[in-house]
Amino acid sequence: MDQFIPPVKDMIFALREVVGKGDLNSNSGFEDFDRDFLETVYESASEITSEIIAPTNKDGDRLGVSIDDGKVTVPNGYAEAYDAYVDGGWSTLSCNPEYGGQGMPASISMPVNEMVMGANFSWAHLVLLTNSAIRAVDAHANDELKDLYLEKLISGKFSGTMNLTEPQAGSDLSVMNTVAEPNGDSYKITGQKIFITWGEHDLSENIIHLVLARLPDAPEGVKGISLFLVPKIRLNADGALAERNTLKAVSVEHKLGIHGCATCVMSFEEAEGFLIGEPNQGLACMFTMMNDARIGVACESVAIAERAYQQAVNYAKDRIQGRTQTSDSRVSIINHPDVRRMLLSMKSLIEVMRVLVYENTFECDLAESKPEHTKRADLLTPITKAWCSELCQDITSIALQVHGGMGYVEETGAAQHFRDARITTIYEGTTGIQANDLIGRKFISDNGSAVNDLLDQIETEVEDSDIESKIKAEVSQAIEQARNVSKFILENIQNDPNLAGSSSYSFLMMMGYLVGGWIAVRNITAAKNSLKETDDKEFYNAKIISSNFYIEQFMPLVRSFGSSAMQGSKSMMSMPDDQF
Amino acid sequence: MDQFIPPVKDMIFALREVVGKGDLNSNSGFEDFDRDFLETVYESASEITSEIIAPTNKDGDRLGVSIDDGKVTVPNGYAEAYDAYVDGGWSTLSCNPEYGGQGMPASISMPVNEMVMGANFSWAHLVLLTNSAIRAVDAHANDELKDLYLEKLISGKFSGTMNLTEPQAGSDLSVMNTVAEPNGDSYKITGQKIFITWGEHDLSENIIHLVLARLPDAPEGVKGISLFLVPKIRLNADGALAERNTLKAVSVEHKLGIHGCATCVMSFEEAEGFLIGEPNQGLACMFTMMNDARIGVACESVAIAERAYQQAVNYAKDRIQGRTQTSDSRVSIINHPDVRRMLLSMKSLIEVMRVLVYENTFECDLAESKPEHTKRADLLTPITKAWCSELCQDITSIALQVHGGMGYVEETGAAQHFRDARITTIYEGTTGIQANDLIGRKFISDNGSAVNDLLDQIETEVEDSDIESKIKAEVSQAIEQARNVSKFILENIQNDPNLAGSSSYSFLMMMGYLVGGWIAVRNITAAKNSLKETDDKEFYNAKIISSNFYIEQFMPLVRSFGSSAMQGSKSMMSMPDDQF
Repeated sequence: MDQFIPPVKDMIFALREVVGKGDLNSNSGFEDFDRDFLETVYESASEITSEIIAPTNKDGDRLGVSIDDGKVTVPNGYAEAYDAYVDGGWSTLSCNPEYGGQGMPASISMPVNEMVMGANFSWAHLVLLTNSAIRAVDAHANDELKDLYLEKLISGKFSGTMNLTEPQAGSDLSVMNTVAEPNGDSYKITGQKIFITWGEHDLSENIIHLVLARLPDAPEGVKGISLFLVPKIRLNADGALAERNTLKAVSVEHKLGIHGCATCVMSFEEAEGFLIGEPNQGLACMFTMMNDARIGVACESVAIAERAYQQAVNYAKDRIQGRTQTSDSRVSIINHPDVRRMLLSMKSLIEVMRVLVYENTFECDLAESKPEHTKRADLLTPITKAWCSELCQDITSIALQVHGGMGYVEETGAAQHFRDARITTIYEGTTGIQANDLIGRKFISDNGSAVNDLLDQIETEVEDSDIESKIKAEVSQAIEQARNVSKFILENIQNDPNLAGSSSYSFLMMMGYLVGGWIAVRNITAAKNSLKETDDKEFYNAKIISSNFYIEQFMPLVRSFGSSAMQGSKSMMSMPDDQF
Repeated sequence: MDQFIPPVKDMIFALREVVGKGDLNSNSGFEDFDRDFLETVYESASEITSEIIAPTNKDGDRLGVSIDDGKVTVPNGYAEAYDAYVDGGWSTLSCNPEYGGQGMPASISMPVNEMVMGANFSWAHLVLLTNSAIRAVDAHANDELKDLYLEKLISGKFSGTMNLTEPQAGSDLSVMNTVAEPNGDSYKITGQKIFITWGEHDLSENIIHLVLARLPDAPEGVKGISLFLVPKIRLNADGALAERNTLKAVSVEHKLGIHGCATCVMSFEEAEGFLIGEPNQGLACMFTMMNDARIGVACESVAIAERAYQQAVNYAKDRIQGRTQTSDSRVSIINHPDVRRMLLSMKSLIEVMRVLVYENTFECDLAESKPEHTKRADLLTPITKAWCSELCQDITSIALQVHGGMGYVEETGAAQHFRDARITTIYEGTTGIQANDLIGRKFISDNGSAVNDLLDQIETEVEDSDIESKIKAEVSQAIEQARNVSKFILENIQNDPNLAGSSSYSFLMMMGYLVGGWIAVRNITAAKNSLKETDDKEFYNAKIISSNFYIEQFMPLVRSFGSSAMQGSKSMMSMPDDQF
C-alpha cells in the first residue's frame, strides 16, 4: 500500500501542454527540452524516486532523527538514497554549468523536485535547501567563495542550510541578535539559530551554513543584516577539508511531522564565516533563496498532496464496505458517491496546484531574459506558496478521512502525510506573511496594476476559450467579484489602516481559487487540443472531468472569500483584547 | 501556558440565555435549575477539571498507554483524576435517580462534559462512554441486569464500553461476524472487535462491555444483530466480583492522537454475556447510545476547540513580534489584524458550535416529554456531529497556525489538540455517514418537511429580531439559497440516483453554516437583552461583535456550499476508476 509512483504523464501535461501551451520550445531558454527529452529525464527520475527514495519514507517517520553530543543520527536508508541521488547527477539539474551544473531552467527541474518531495518529504529537504543555498551563493558570493564552494555544493559533496530564525526573531527578522565580528578576511560569527533544517548530519562531507548576522555598528532593523557563508568544516585554500569550525547542533526539535528531518538548534561561537554580497544587504541576498524556497514549498504541497491522494485511491479501491443505490452486492468504497467526491476533490485541486507551481516557476525562468515577466512572477509567488500549502492541509486531511478509522492509526501511513503537510503553511513565511506580501507589496503599492493585468488576461482567455457557457459564466462572475474586491480595498485603504491586514487572507484565498479556475479552463482547453491527436482519450477526458469538477465545486469560493474580504476591519479591531 | 479554564460564563450564556431564551425554568424538567444552581454546579466542575484533570493532559499525550500481556498501563495522574471525578459524584449527573443518579436533563450536564473533554480529551472518553453505556442499559436491559450493574456503572465503580467495529465491518455493521451462542440464561460471545475505547484498564473495578453479536440462525445483515452485556469480571448473584471472563485486550492502537486513551483490539472467546433488549434488535438498542454519542462528539469538538483557542490566545498575547501600521514599537502578535482574524474566527465559531450542541441536547431532553421535539432533535443530530467536528479541524489548525513555527514543535501543545481533534470527524459515524443520514433519512424520506420547518422558524425569528438590516439580508439570502437547494434535490432525486450521495456533504455543510447564522442572530438578541440588565457590558458587547463576525465571514459559505450541492453527480460518477 505504501508505494509512490510519480505522475509523470500529469507532470508533462501540466508543464508542456498547459504552461507551455503545447510549445514550450518556442520560449528562449527552452530550445533543448522537447517532449522526448522530458519523458526520458522524468521517467528516469521517477525510477530512482519510487524505487530508492520512497521506500525510506515510512521508516524515516517512525525512527526519526536523534542527536547525541552534537552528532545527528539519521534513519536507515537515507545515506543510500543520498548517494544514489547525487551519483545520478540529480542535484545538478538547474545549476550553473560553470560549476558542474546542467543549466536547466528551474521549471524543467521542478517536476523532479516534486517527485523527490513526494518520495520522502523529510529527506528531500536536504537536497532542495542545498539547491536554494546554491542559488544564493551563485548570485551573490564573490568568485573566490564560488570557486571554493560552488562545485562541491552542486555535486552534492557538500550540503547547504539557511540560518535565519532566532527565538525572538521569527517572522520579524529585524530583531535578530547574531553578530559577525571582522577578523582579517573573514568574520567571527556568534549567536544561536533555531529551526535549522538539516543543520547537522553526516550524509554529505561538509555542511555550508548561510547565516544572517549583524556587523558591528550596523544600522538597526532589517537594514543592518548581512549574509555569511559559515562552513561546518573549514577549507584550506586548495579546498581540502581542514579543522572543524566552532559551531554545532545543540538539539533537534521534537516535531508534529517531518520526523525524518533534522531540525536543529545551531550554536555559533566565533565561528569562521565569509561575507556574501555587500554588508547590510543580507536580507536582499537571502530573498534570492526565499522566493525560490517559497515556490519550493508550494511544490512540496503538491507532492505531499499527490502522495496522500495516491494512498487514498489505493485504499478506496481495495476497501470493501457497504452497498450502493445501484448495486446489491458489497462494493469497494470508491463506488460510494461521497468517497468519489473526496477523491475527485483531491485530484482536481492537485492538478490545478501543479500547473500553478510550474507556471510561477516558468514566469521566473522567463523573467531572467524578459524582465516584463518579473511582475507576474512576483505577484504569483505569495499566492502559489500560501494557497497551495493551505490546500495541502485540506487534501491530506481528506486523504486521511477516506481511510475512516484506519486513517487515524499511524501504521496506515495517511496520518504521516497529514502531519508532514502541516509545516507547509508555516515555514518560508506563514500564510499570514504571504497574504501581507500580496496585498501590500504586490497589490496596494502597485495600485492594483499587476492584479488588474492578471484579471484582464484571465478574462480574455476564458472569453476566447471553447468551453461550456455555464463554466464561462462561473469564471466571469468570479472575475467580476475579484474586480469589486480590488476596487473596494483600493478605495477604502486610506480611511481604514487595518483594512489591508484584516482582508489580506481572504483576498489571497480569493485570488488563489480564481487563478485555479483560470488554470482549470486552460486544462480543459489543453486536454481538448490533445484529444485531437492522441489515442489516450481516457487520460484527457479525465482531465476535462476533473477540471469541470474544480469549477463546479471550488469556484463558488471566490465569491465567498471575496465577500469576506469586503467586510472591513471593524469587527476584528473592536474586540477588546481581554474578551478573547 | 498549558492551562485550561472552562468558560463557565460562556456556557451559562449559551444554555440559559440563548437556548433557554432567558427562561430555561419554564420548560418541564428544568424547574430545579435556576441560574444560581447552574453557577454553583459549573464553578465546582470547573475547579476539578482545571485543577485535577487538565494537568494530566500533556503527560498523557507524551507517555501514552501501553499494553503487556493484556494489562494496560495508563499515564500518571489518571487514577487520581478518576477517583476525584467519581468521588465528587460527577459521573452521576444525568443518570437515573433510581440507581443513584441525579436525574439532571442531559443539557444541564452537557457543559460539565464539555469541561471534562477540554481538560483531558483522552481521559474523558472513559467517563463519557460509560455514560452512553449507562443510557443503553437503562433503556433496554431487564430489571435483573439493571439491578446488578446500573448502580455500579453510575457510581463509577464500573466503567463501560461500546463494541461495534470489526476489521471488515466499520461503517457497514451488516457484515459483522461476532457470534453469541445460547448457554442457559446467558450466552457465549466469540469474536474480535477493534477500536474499543478504554477496552482495558484498571481505573475502575470492572469493565462492562456492550457487544454487538449474532445469534445462531439470526437473519443476515443488520436485522440479525443483538446487543449483549459482557463483563470483564463476572459477578455473583449478590453482585460481588467473581472470576475473570474469557475476554481480553490483545493490543492497543498506535494512533495519530488521543495517545492517552487506550484504544483496544478486544478478543472474546466464549465470554459470558447477557442479552440486552430483544433478540435481533441490537442495532436499535445501540442507537440509543449512538445518538447520544454523536452529540457527545460534537461537544468534544467544542471542548478541544476551546482549549486550542485558549492556548492560542495566551500565546498571541505573550509573543512579541513585529510592528503594526499604527504603532512604532514592537507589539504582541494579538495586535496584528491577521492574527486577530484567526482568533476571532475561532471564538465566533466556538460560540455558535456550543449553542448548537446545547440546543440539540435540549431538544432531546424536551422530546422525552414532548414528542413533537423528536423530529427537530433527529434533524439536528447529524448536522451537529458533522459540522462541529469539521469546524474543530479548522479551529485546532488555526490555533496551531497562530503559534507559527512553535506550533509545529510538540512541546508547545498546540499540535496535540490538532492531532486529538482529527478523530472527531471519523468515529461515531464519519462526516460522510452523517451527511448520508441527513440527506436520506432526515430530508428526502421526510420529503423535506423537517428542514422546511427549521427554515421557516429561522426566517421568522430573524425577521422579527432587532438586528442590523445588513445582517438580516445576509441571513435571508442564505435561507433562500437553502430553499433552492432543497427544492433542487427533491425535484431531481428521481432522475439521478447518485444525487443524494454526491451532494450530501455540501448539503450538510450548507445547513451547518446556516444554522450557525441563525444561532449568531440569537446570540446577538440574547446579548442585547442581557445588556439591559447587567454591569458586565464588555462580555455581552463582545458576544455581539463575535456574532457579527460570524455572519460577515462565514455566512457567505452557505451560498458556496449550496452552489456546490446543486451540481449533480455527473462529474463525480463519470470519472473512470482507473483515472483516479
